[in-house]
Amino acid sequence: MWADLGLDLEAHDVLLGVLGDAYGKIFLSQANRPEGMGYFDFVMSEVHGLRIKELLDEKKAGRKIIGSFCVFVPEEIALAANATLVGLCSGADFALEEVEKLLPRNTCALIKSAFGFKIGKVCPYLESADLIVGENTCDGKKKAYESLGHLVDNLYVMDLPQSKSENGRALLKAEYLRFKETVENLTGCLITPESLKQGIATVNAKRAAIHRLSALRKADPAPISGLDALLANQVFFYDNPARFTASVNTICDELEKRIDTKTGVFPSKHPRIIISGCPQAVPNWKLPMLIETAGAVIVGEESCVGERGTRNLTRDSGKTIDEMLEAIVDRYFQVDCAIFTPNRDRLEHIQEMVENYQADGVIHYGLQFCQPYLMEAIPVEKALEEKGIPCLRIETDYSMEDIGQLKTRVEAFIEQLS
Amino acid sequence: MWADLGLDLEAHDVLLGVLGDAYGKIFLSQANRPEGMGYFDFVMSEVHGLRIKELLDEKKAGRKIIGSFCVFVPEEIALAANATLVGLCSGADFALEEVEKLLPRNTCALIKSAFGFKIGKVCPYLESADLIVGENTCDGKKKAYESLGHLVDNLYVMDLPQSKSENGRALLKAEYLRFKETVENLTGCLITPESLKQGIATVNAKRAAIHRLSALRKADPAPISGLDALLANQVFFYDNPARFTASVNTICDELEKRIDTKTGVFPSKHPRIIISGCPQAVPNWKLPMLIETAGAVIVGEESCVGERGTRNLTRDSGKTIDEMLEAIVDRYFQVDCAIFTPNRDRLEHIQEMVENYQADGVIHYGLQFCQPYLMEAIPVEKALEEKGIPCLRIETDYSMEDIGQLKTRVEAFIEQLS
Repeated sequence: MWADLGLDLEAHDVLLGVLGDAYGKIFLSQANRPEGMGYFDFVMSEVHGLRIKELLDEKKAGRKIIGSFCVFVPEEIALAANATLVGLCSGADFALEEVEKLLPRNTCALIKSAFGFKIGKVCPYLESADLIVGENTCDGKKKAYESLGHLVDNLYVMDLPQSKSENGRALLKAEYLRFKETVENLTGCLITPESLKQGIATVNAKRAAIHRLSALRKADPAPISGLDALLANQVFFYDNPARFTASVNTICDELEKRIDTKTGVFPSKHPRIIISGCPQAVPNWKLPMLIETAGAVIVGEESCVGERGTRNLTRDSGKTIDEMLEAIVDRYFQVDCAIFTPNRDRLEHIQEMVENYQADGVIHYGLQFCQPYLMEAIPVEKALEEKGIPCLRIETDYSMEDIGQLKTRVEAFIEQLS
Repeated sequence: MWADLGLDLEAHDVLLGVLGDAYGKIFLSQANRPEGMGYFDFVMSEVHGLRIKELLDEKKAGRKIIGSFCVFVPEEIALAANATLVGLCSGADFALEEVEKLLPRNTCALIKSAFGFKIGKVCPYLESADLIVGENTCDGKKKAYESLGHLVDNLYVMDLPQSKSENGRALLKAEYLRFKETVENLTGCLITPESLKQGIATVNAKRAAIHRLSALRKADPAPISGLDALLANQVFFYDNPARFTASVNTICDELEKRIDTKTGVFPSKHPRIIISGCPQAVPNWKLPMLIETAGAVIVGEESCVGERGTRNLTRDSGKTIDEMLEAIVDRYFQVDCAIFTPNRDRLEHIQEMVENYQADGVIHYGLQFCQPYLMEAIPVEKALEEKGIPCLRIETDYSMEDIGQLKTRVEAFIEQLS
């Protein structure tokens, strides 16, 4: 299967070995895990196995696979046209030396990682995809797609607005219409009101399950670790949607019982942290691992891989395709990514999360060279501290070189919260 | 005058001292300068003197001053509504320590400089401006304006497209209409077909003079140094437009005579360089100074402060305001800034310039942390070298720390061209 996809088998084995080791040390070593996490352990052990086989089986049955790098790519539309949307690997360094021939060294780790997985031929999702969707979010990604277009022959770039104006919304609508036509051409399936309604229902169900999980994290003691909840948010991008929804709901059933019996993964009154900032893609678990081994629990992620990506359902009252497309545009246009200016909603959302999840502080996670989030971090920190909410700004990448220094800073911050 | 503007007199004196010293060493020390450069020597000696007094006199007479950071702000519209457009200082480090409390250290020098001049209270243009126009070009500027908005009370932000699509053009048109209304409200003068026609004529004349100057740089030996031609391109942003046009034309008359007599600033067959990349604002003369003291002459600037900013006249055949606005949109929509994706025109333009100016090589000037240009530099270099055009990629900032290293690299590159 791997050779057919054109993967570099040796490099891929190395990657899986590292991934398995890290997963064992970071996830399986946690105490008091919910039993339901067994499903996600299985998913992760088969993330480059059974899940890929499923996708290839779908392809054999005539379905198309669309790979995406961003939460602005509407899964509703993909599903409605008989395509499966998957997130593309970008949480680890790979083939860095080759990547830095194509991208400046001063490029964020997430973008470099996407290139590294392609150049190193180790991402079966990317190789399975019939269409790869880039999007004009930050300058780094926008310009990187120009080069990625020379490495793959199926790149499609979605334009995005920079401000939440009337013109900005019109651009998003036009681009979603263009995406709809592109997916229809790819799959040969015209979207119908019924299929779009079903697409919206499927994605909303997935989001609703995550909302339920998030709400349970308000409890003290926390019934699930931040690492495990992050994992669910990460798998959100890869798994079969219906099975994912069911599995998250199963965990939620278990967590409700834990809450009734005041069973937690950490003791009550453990310092509670909101992580805010850049996305954390698999297997980028460095910072949450540091936080949760330093005496705190993460109770929410204000992140693309987290509430920024999953909050807000798509309005499902539309009858016609256009009404439903308007609802989809309305939903995605609320995403408060730092590429927008101004982006006041994000600060409000962080404050809301602190309150809702009874957090003691915020750790702002910035990927080095990610200009939008690093720049926004400074006013975010200032605003939070003015409201008496402690905030720690972290700037890091995917390497392990700074782990000692980060550990010291995180421990000192948590100490201050206790 | 300075105290009335709220400048920090002591800091401003220090700045002027440094500027004067640098100007003397870099410009006045050049051999065989055209006599017409005397005008620009005077302009530079009075850049924070007479020119500011002129602007303040204009203000007293009821005219408004608009400061801008980008070539996308249409001077035609400002002039037509009885306002003067000036470029805002951003070519030197100032108050860095204070700036880095508001912006990440990993922000490009140009953006930091704009903040430094504001925080340090040393830019009389910024302090004279009735309206400061920011624009959503790169992520760095886009997000920085959010913070600049807390330092000044007259910031207006213009949205810009990221791609040259139909939607992109519609956004630019809508934003230029909004800018027109904003300037009209500021000045209280409604733009008329006559005033807009005059605005277009004034700016076109300025551009045509620069085009004439550029064309004369095709000659061998070069009749003017790259430093002096850059200075003219820099003063383009500050000076009274009509006087600037006349002064550039006077220099051109002189250069034509030089060409007739084969008089140059350097010997014939001197290696000829095109600089391409980020803008070089006053007093950012580091790289051109290094190039021209290392045995080469710069014959063209593919830069905002250069041909990217000045090429293409605005079509002047329109009769109605809307026809003229369409012409303005058409003209600015051609600007091939690296914020656009894709941005193929820029590469073509560089190659055209190499051919037109008989250049031997290209030095790509990238400001550290300027993602759009640094990312585009890699494919630009590759494409040029595939066509047999030598290219040197420089990444630097405004400090003098790397001058030894840059000198070595520039000398080695020029040696290779000889």
